[in-house]
Amino acid sequence: MTKQTISVQLSTAKKQKPKADQLEFGRTFTDHMFIMDYSAESGWHDPRIIPYQPIEMDPAAMVYHYGQSVFEGLKAYLSNKGKVLLFRPEKNVERLNKSNDRLCIPRVDPDTVLEGLKQLLQIDKEWIPTAEGTSLYIRPFIISTEPYLGVAPSKTYKLLIILSPVGSYYKEGIHPVKIAVESEFVRAVAGGTGNAKTAGNYAASLKAQEVAESKGFSQVLWLDGIEKKYIEEVGSMNIFFKINGEIVTPALNGSILEGITRNSVIYLLKQWGLSVTEKRISVDELIQAHKVGQLEEAFGTGTAAVISPVGELIWKEENFVINNGKTGEIAKKLYDTITGIQKGALPDSFGWTVEVDSVSQTC
Amino acid sequence: MTKQTISVQLSTAKKQKPKADQLEFGRTFTDHMFIMDYSAESGWHDPRIIPYQPIEMDPAAMVYHYGQSVFEGLKAYLSNKGKVLLFRPEKNVERLNKSNDRLCIPRVDPDTVLEGLKQLLQIDKEWIPTAEGTSLYIRPFIISTEPYLGVAPSKTYKLLIILSPVGSYYKEGIHPVKIAVESEFVRAVAGGTGNAKTAGNYAASLKAQEVAESKGFSQVLWLDGIEKKYIEEVGSMNIFFKINGEIVTPALNGSILEGITRNSVIYLLKQWGLSVTEKRISVDELIQAHKVGQLEEAFGTGTAAVISPVGELIWKEENFVINNGKTGEIAKKLYDTITGIQKGALPDSFGWTVEVDSVSQTC
Repeated sequence: MTKQTISVQLSTAKKQKPKADQLEFGRTFTDHMFIMDYSAESGWHDPRIIPYQPIEMDPAAMVYHYGQSVFEGLKAYLSNKGKVLLFRPEKNVERLNKSNDRLCIPRVDPDTVLEGLKQLLQIDKEWIPTAEGTSLYIRPFIISTEPYLGVAPSKTYKLLIILSPVGSYYKEGIHPVKIAVESEFVRAVAGGTGNAKTAGNYAASLKAQEVAESKGFSQVLWLDGIEKKYIEEVGSMNIFFKINGEIVTPALNGSILEGITRNSVIYLLKQWGLSVTEKRISVDELIQAHKVGQLEEAFGTGTAAVISPVGELIWKEENFVINNGKTGEIAKKLYDTITGIQKGALPDSFGWTVEVDSVSQTC
Repeated sequence: MTKQTISVQLSTAKKQKPKADQLEFGRTFTDHMFIMDYSAESGWHDPRIIPYQPIEMDPAAMVYHYGQSVFEGLKAYLSNKGKVLLFRPEKNVERLNKSNDRLCIPRVDPDTVLEGLKQLLQIDKEWIPTAEGTSLYIRPFIISTEPYLGVAPSKTYKLLIILSPVGSYYKEGIHPVKIAVESEFVRAVAGGTGNAKTAGNYAASLKAQEVAESKGFSQVLWLDGIEKKYIEEVGSMNIFFKINGEIVTPALNGSILEGITRNSVIYLLKQWGLSVTEKRISVDELIQAHKVGQLEEAFGTGTAAVISPVGELIWKEENFVINNGKTGEIAKKLYDTITGIQKGALPDSFGWTVEVDSVSQTC
């Protein structure tokens, strides 16, 4: 696939930007969006940047009925030198294509998508918030558009990239959450779609989350769908534990999402000389470690929150407080380091940040 | 919930109807559709019939990202007395609400939805094809519409009903298909969404179906996600076997869809004095029965095909021909009886068919 030329149609009306202290997650969108179409005859074609606008589709469009769709999530930051920075965006496009394979969606050309994203960011650069903890959330997604009710892969698709300025995930700074180990509902199982970033996984998670919230917990800790014994993910994040000085995280097993923050955390921990092991972790093992005082830290990792410390686990109506309900040392250091690298405030020894070059764009 | 008044806006331009011999499944849609909105403040409101038209939504609409959606499928027939007949439509609305519960979507008022469907059918009555094997396929569906990227139940929804005249599922009459037992991919697992009619289940099934088709098989036979040992469904249908004179079908276990055709088949078989058992059936047991010559019939059941005989099973590269690859006696009798009842050609001793009353509608 060759990189295609991206056409640009600028918006004539500019929307009002929200104030830094009013930013929420994923509710406000910028002035423009990137869009590209797929048909069997033309492949992925007509990449373009247009004013942010509703999309119009036939009610029989397959995404509404059979959920054939994939998405990604990443963030852009404005460095204190005024540069637009992305964090490992090539990993997102790589994962998008892996999700495409699982969902029978044609692969995209990574260069075209990354170029489209960069141009879009240049155009909507003024939307990138700069206050502590804020960023511009980027949502690339692909939806199946063929108006057909047969259960089969769609013959047409749309890829879109939309941008949303987001506030700090933690209104009062990073703080630990209470999570319930989920023993009834299952998010995914080996052979299913758990390791693809596709809509159905998130739809399946809503009920357990609703039940957990009604009991006063923030998130659920998912167990494997087979034995309901091994730890998989927390909410829509990967999970790490520090047990007796060693850091462990569930090994990728086909039903766990291969998080880019997860991968970055593993690299950083190793660089710091810490022991980190990807392995199968049972909930019994975890509770046992807690009982003997060796469960020292727990935290989730994901794009939205970056690092989300777990202060309390609930399992079979019993509560297990971790690290006195406080943010652990490792979690804090990871949060500061990753957000520091993302914003260009800390040295980036892994070459993770990508600077979006200025283009001569009047906007 | 009280039944609401349905407003009607008729189409000024009529589309050309396809010829009976050109009908496919789910590609052509009628002149009108039913639509209704949900908001937290107004509940389900503004039920209306409008010309069939594209729907316009924000690119951040939750259905595109997190697949919070449910659907149903049923058919309307025109009897030889010119009456519009539905087959157990109240069961579809009941199941729609069960799916709503699992997907955290607010329940609908069954009377409003059924009344909307009936009025829509009266208006588009001329679209109901009458040739042998044809019918009007009805697709009610609900999609989440809130423009928000947080993973949470949407605060707004749309319910639509669209209609599609469909041809015979079997171009050359009912005929047996080859199906492969799926040992890699999993459709659903207990605790997941397998017993809800939601988009993600179908997205998850595409890859296995694609692989099966590339090897010359029509469908896959799904095994349970836990032990990959017990039979669940075939493609997007329920499955029945006749083993040594006894009819068996997998018991509803939380990951199997509660098919309305499945339920009707069980009733009919019992009425005919046949033994029918809902139980856990292992693939080993099935293969064993075949080896001793006791696997006498196999057939799928579902709205689209009604009854789909299985002529050959493929398991671990071995082929097992059933009933000499021919349609079994039971499958044929069930197909003739159910379609006969659906079209009003046979007596309906269970009171399954619902006649859509004429309304004084000029269309």
